[in-house]
Amino acid sequence: MAHTTSPGGTPGIVGQIFAHRESEEALNTLAQVVMCGPSPLTRAERELIAAVVSAGNDSYFCTNTHAAAARHLFGDRAGVVDAVLTDPGTGHPEERLRALLAIAAKVRRGGCSVTPDDVARARAAGADDREVHDTVLIAAMLCMFNRYVDNFGPWAPRDPSVYQEIGARIATTGDRGQYPDEPVVVYAYG
Amino acid sequence: MAHTTSPGGTPGIVGQIFAHRESEEALNTLAQVVMCGPSPLTRAERELIAAVVSAGNDSYFCTNTHAAAARHLFGDRAGVVDAVLTDPGTGHPEERLRALLAIAAKVRRGGCSVTPDDVARARAAGADDREVHDTVLIAAMLCMFNRYVDNFGPWAPRDPSVYQEIGARIATTGDRGQYPDEPVVVYAYG
Repeated sequence: MAHTTSPGGTPGIVGQIFAHRESEEALNTLAQVVMCGPSPLTRAERELIAAVVSAGNDSYFCTNTHAAAARHLFGDRAGVVDAVLTDPGTGHPEERLRALLAIAAKVRRGGCSVTPDDVARARAAGADDREVHDTVLIAAMLCMFNRYVDNFGPWAPRDPSVYQEIGARIATTGDRGQYPDEPVVVYAYG
Repeated sequence: MAHTTSPGGTPGIVGQIFAHRESEEALNTLAQVVMCGPSPLTRAERELIAAVVSAGNDSYFCTNTHAAAARHLFGDRAGVVDAVLTDPGTGHPEERLRALLAIAAKVRRGGCSVTPDDVARARAAGADDREVHDTVLIAAMLCMFNRYVDNFGPWAPRDPSVYQEIGARIATTGDRGQYPDEPVVVYAYG
């Protein structure tokens, strides 16, 4: 039961975004740029970081949405998503991703958490400063979206097939404007 | 000393934003819409909420920037900013703002923190659902910006006059496009 009014039946962030169209465009554009725009991180890696941060923040809707998108984007390697969600510290086979996920976990906990040693570890594993920057921004952005979604007490679907469908949509039609007659966010970050 | 490379001398978030122009536009637009766009909350109230959330997150640059903007916007009532920063629970003379600041404080702590009782308290004091929504979004957005700024270990000015200048700029030229030859964010959210 949502604490505030929003159009009925729309899950998670979508309900709130429908109700406040002035901020919808700006939030959706940011998500699109960060998650689908130019980056040395693959879209699968970005969705994985988003899922892990959301899981750390106990955000049911965001965790399941981004995990589903990551599974879709990883394809044959989809098992890495659940391995990382089970243990973010060791679940990924690549040290570069383990180091970036460690940075994301620190960002999730607050500001001034990431140390020069954390960045040095990522660099030693092959990450450049842009990858570190994008990881910090993704983690920070999810700390916003998780709080925005979950503090309204929205209804979120419990049927896993709903998230598989949303994840497939994000993975395949993440670019904005694919559905010009409907709110883009439903398809980009439903 | 910043952990990652960015153009030298630019404080706080500005240094990172300069280095990554793809996300600058989206972040700046979001800040502009949320802080300066249509809302039943005054711009002064929004800057106050942003300052209090930033203070809770120990974000030196963001706290001082938004507090300076709030002082400028409150004008003769600028003293309320320091009263609220000293004690967010009792510092504001209006129960409506005290209730909204209590919601912002809960959002800062995480998702699923705001309760129906918190919203009921704000409603009883005269706040409508849009004011509650905007408070949640401001608080959530600052949780992003605080983490984005502070996790790069950026240099931030310690001279209070720098923040007074930035605050006056935000207060008087917050609208984007005022300085088309320079990055807008310096003026909107320096």
